[in-house]
Amino acid sequence: MNSNSSINADRIGADIDALSAITEPGRPWTRRAFTPMFLEGRKWLEHALHEAGAVTQIDAAGNLIGVVPGKHPELGSIMVGSHSDTVPDGGRFDGIAGVVAGLEVARALRDQGMVLDHTLEIVDFLAEEVSIFGVSCIGSRGMSGTRPAEWLARTGDGLTLEQGISQVGGKPHGQAQRDDIRAFLELHIEQGPVLQDEELDVGVVTAIAGITRIEIIVEGRADHAGTTPMTLRKDALTTAAWIALGVEELGKALASGEHHFAATVGEFEMTPNAANVVPARVRILIDARAEQRDDMERFVDELDRGVAAISAKTGVPVSPLRIVSDNNPTPGDAMLLDVLDAACETAGARHRRMASGAGHDTAWMARITKAAMIFVPCVDGRSHSPDEFATTQDIALGAAVLLDAVVALDKKLQETD
Amino acid sequence: MNSNSSINADRIGADIDALSAITEPGRPWTRRAFTPMFLEGRKWLEHALHEAGAVTQIDAAGNLIGVVPGKHPELGSIMVGSHSDTVPDGGRFDGIAGVVAGLEVARALRDQGMVLDHTLEIVDFLAEEVSIFGVSCIGSRGMSGTRPAEWLARTGDGLTLEQGISQVGGKPHGQAQRDDIRAFLELHIEQGPVLQDEELDVGVVTAIAGITRIEIIVEGRADHAGTTPMTLRKDALTTAAWIALGVEELGKALASGEHHFAATVGEFEMTPNAANVVPARVRILIDARAEQRDDMERFVDELDRGVAAISAKTGVPVSPLRIVSDNNPTPGDAMLLDVLDAACETAGARHRRMASGAGHDTAWMARITKAAMIFVPCVDGRSHSPDEFATTQDIALGAAVLLDAVVALDKKLQETD
Repeated sequence: MNSNSSINADRIGADIDALSAITEPGRPWTRRAFTPMFLEGRKWLEHALHEAGAVTQIDAAGNLIGVVPGKHPELGSIMVGSHSDTVPDGGRFDGIAGVVAGLEVARALRDQGMVLDHTLEIVDFLAEEVSIFGVSCIGSRGMSGTRPAEWLARTGDGLTLEQGISQVGGKPHGQAQRDDIRAFLELHIEQGPVLQDEELDVGVVTAIAGITRIEIIVEGRADHAGTTPMTLRKDALTTAAWIALGVEELGKALASGEHHFAATVGEFEMTPNAANVVPARVRILIDARAEQRDDMERFVDELDRGVAAISAKTGVPVSPLRIVSDNNPTPGDAMLLDVLDAACETAGARHRRMASGAGHDTAWMARITKAAMIFVPCVDGRSHSPDEFATTQDIALGAAVLLDAVVALDKKLQETD
Repeated sequence: MNSNSSINADRIGADIDALSAITEPGRPWTRRAFTPMFLEGRKWLEHALHEAGAVTQIDAAGNLIGVVPGKHPELGSIMVGSHSDTVPDGGRFDGIAGVVAGLEVARALRDQGMVLDHTLEIVDFLAEEVSIFGVSCIGSRGMSGTRPAEWLARTGDGLTLEQGISQVGGKPHGQAQRDDIRAFLELHIEQGPVLQDEELDVGVVTAIAGITRIEIIVEGRADHAGTTPMTLRKDALTTAAWIALGVEELGKALASGEHHFAATVGEFEMTPNAANVVPARVRILIDARAEQRDDMERFVDELDRGVAAISAKTGVPVSPLRIVSDNNPTPGDAMLLDVLDAACETAGARHRRMASGAGHDTAWMARITKAAMIFVPCVDGRSHSPDEFATTQDIALGAAVLLDAVVALDKKLQETD
């Protein structure tokens, strides 16, 4: 790290440790949104934001926000942050690293006696992970005005989401959508192995991949496994096996290009799944992620033709592809990406541009403001697991990039406006 | 059917209908061993055996036997029969066809005023299907002295098998093994499509296939489906897919030879089976059936090498093959097969020799006597399903073959002894 930075790695390490300690006993590291543990974590965070000189509030969408007023509040806000909730048995860094980095940016500015022209906001989005209500990104969807109205009636653990938002201090029917945020930046662990593999410090995220989920049903025929000759079968499994291999082959071909692409058969259920019965039916759920919409369209098109060819060859009927969900990629704001590249240089961070294969709050914030994110390395790409790990040094270097970017933006946003 | 036969198809049709009517209400055609329905079916059968001129008894193993004493009972018995129990939601013919054919053989002999030299026995074996105690062929294993002693302690529906055998009238600790049966013949529906496909009337069963079950565990690595590049994965599913295709290919190659062979991946379970996670683990259970032990040994050997080659190519570790169970094939008695072929000619039945891919009571009876079986066609090979169907004409023609074979054996067994 460039020694000029006023980012303090020790403070970051202490913050991570303090939040790690707030976990369901015997189940590290679990602090799911809407639970008492989550509220305890937020209480700690609120206190830390106060210590950093911020005023805190819970917005209508249930997000915790630390506000450091700028010299010219009428310019609007620059927001940084991420989320403090975890998946069950989740990690200490996914989301948390970005919240702590935001907190450290506020402290570093205060240490330098520096007050921005814009107001600085540090956000902890509510329930970025899939929550007890079965949905994710509840806070950032609320802040961007894209949270479906019917979600308030969703239930989980005996609560409605409406009650859940109230319990964390939000106003389920209040005005949550913001129009005064001029830029949003999120630091996050990569959740993949690329930065570690390439020995880099920071990934400047060009886009958050679009996610398309596709269901395919292979309809074979249950036959006696002992008495039905090999040539007279309609084995759903072997046809499904060809499809799974086709998905991998197509995925690899598209991933070999310039842009991020991944395709996975994540769900695969066979019936009747009995030792002495030829498989009758397989349900496949494909998860495909593309940085470029063109790649996704090509994938769906080639998959469709490939599956038809497999079915024709094996003689086992296959349902038409069913698109279960389909989201476009979210490109990072071009100006912000340039600012982040430059901040990497200033901070001495070895960096590259890369896409995010995972979804993030940033994708929702991009609906209402210029938004971008950076990745810091995590060990072996492990995430959503107790083994998830990122070094304090790596997070601190990322925070230094964030700090430099925020300071640069504070000027640049005034030039470009 | 040769018009000289005294087999009466109408009687067979009426018997099948009568037994079909004894089913769990609303769940055709269910008459599982040890249930009140099963005992009701046996009461009907007992009455029918009496009408056919037989004396009935339940042996120590719980089998219902109709005995028609021969002119020279010291010669021992010729036994025919099968089983009257069904699988849940099972069929009207699996087992039942053979019991009814045996009954009709007794009636046809009586109608002709013919008394054999040997005693004729018509058997309904107890619990050929997998029973509430989790095991099958309970009666034929008992009669052949191969029922494991520890089975009596098995439980199901709040009973021990010991109690279950007592309730059907058997003597769990009595002497069940027989040494006075000179030949056993079983008629059964094919439970496969071959006779229908080839427009034949009867299959003379050369062997009951040996069954070997093999478990393979593919140990990949759970990774984030969005963030983990296609080239850095250890996807358990695609490796398992190659294995499933390899099993099919090997199975087809071995099945293309002279002897019956089939290999099926009947169980296939993937974890974590979550849309956004690269598959971590797949458990495969292979069911392989061989008429010839050599073929099975070749299969296991080539599978072992094939799986190792796949694992080396994909880089995903695979457990060593685990042989879960392994039973040798049971060849039909050569003399009986010749007698059955000749009986087909006499009865005017278009016939072929073929192996049984499914297990049967005959495999156990072969431990204590000359044993063989014949198949009659069933529609589309359907079995263990409410759709199972065989025509009365086909069963009657099979019964005529059985009658001719029994009459021929009554002489031939005296010549060869």
